[in-house]
Amino acid sequence: MGKEMKIPKSTITRLSLYCRRLEILEFNGYRMVSSEKLAWLCQVNPAQVRKDLGYFGEFGIRGVGYDVKDLQVEIKKILSINREWNMGIIGIGHLGSALLNHQNFPARDFHFVLAFDSDKKKIGKKLRLGLIIEDVRELKQAVIKKDIDIGVITTPSSGAQKSADRFVGAGVNAIMNFSPTQITVPDQCVIEHIDFTIKLDILTYKLKDELNSLNI
Amino acid sequence: MGKEMKIPKSTITRLSLYCRRLEILEFNGYRMVSSEKLAWLCQVNPAQVRKDLGYFGEFGIRGVGYDVKDLQVEIKKILSINREWNMGIIGIGHLGSALLNHQNFPARDFHFVLAFDSDKKKIGKKLRLGLIIEDVRELKQAVIKKDIDIGVITTPSSGAQKSADRFVGAGVNAIMNFSPTQITVPDQCVIEHIDFTIKLDILTYKLKDELNSLNI
Repeated sequence: MGKEMKIPKSTITRLSLYCRRLEILEFNGYRMVSSEKLAWLCQVNPAQVRKDLGYFGEFGIRGVGYDVKDLQVEIKKILSINREWNMGIIGIGHLGSALLNHQNFPARDFHFVLAFDSDKKKIGKKLRLGLIIEDVRELKQAVIKKDIDIGVITTPSSGAQKSADRFVGAGVNAIMNFSPTQITVPDQCVIEHIDFTIKLDILTYKLKDELNSLNI
Repeated sequence: MGKEMKIPKSTITRLSLYCRRLEILEFNGYRMVSSEKLAWLCQVNPAQVRKDLGYFGEFGIRGVGYDVKDLQVEIKKILSINREWNMGIIGIGHLGSALLNHQNFPARDFHFVLAFDSDKKKIGKKLRLGLIIEDVRELKQAVIKKDIDIGVITTPSSGAQKSADRFVGAGVNAIMNFSPTQITVPDQCVIEHIDFTIKLDILTYKLKDELNSLNI
């Protein structure tokens, strides 16, 4: 179904969020959850939960709700997070190091298995988990050997497009770009940009709105 | 208008993106831009651009397009980014350091003016731009003195709620949470969460979708 129909990106984002709340519910011993409760936990309305899930099938039992474990399995299948993913990263500065040390990536089965930089002073340096910073010019062979699914870019803006080209040239078809610049990739490659400053714009908009509503 | 009507968050996110593209257009010498061109640059459809802007008034000239400079000014006013914002940050590990060094924050008039940590080995350490890591237990006085608008949290999960409470207790009403955990704030406080792993879920969903459509 998902193949013919264009699913809104906001639905995908919420599915990811539902999954996280379901994990917590399971951890806390819940076996079933109503769409009302799940919605409340995710700060959306119950109709939205039902609509989002409705794109992919019938998951709940009317009047009872959803099986906490089963729904997680289904959402993970939809999002393709029911498996391990190998990641490579280019640019081992502060942000790159932060991501490599981020506890939630391996916890969600996203594993950094390769790290690259172009700085000779960094190449060869040992990182946690047995990783060694490799020369970005030797990326292609390494990426093919280690079967990398996702390329993460944390270089300065000036190096971002070149980094994307390197990943794509090595057959990587999914890019996560943390560099604050626009980069282009071929059609068969999917890309997500993370721009922290856009989130700040949303925050200041909401803050202004809040102040207005209080007549401050 | 924005006060009475609930504007979709996706609209706010896109306004932020339009603004960035308009800046580049201005830099490249453009004075006017059609909604078609702006839409193309932002990878949305032209009707979406007109709808998003339509929430806030009439900005374009029919058959001509938008004034590149004027539209930027208007969007910045809407988003409240036509001014400087002072930020404080708690948690100066890799991610905190990455944000403090991120070129795009000051470029967009978001300034880190205070940095805190609870680790005695870090307190007193000098950072770039003349900042010194201060003791988080002395946050309240410092935040009030420096007139902080936005509190940024980059602590481990275990310290996130406490950090939010500290900011709120010092009168900060906007929080940006990078810590991979849910935190709650009072109604008058606005909050944005940045969870990198949700972006990865979107990426793997898109990747699966792309592979399906290619029948691989």
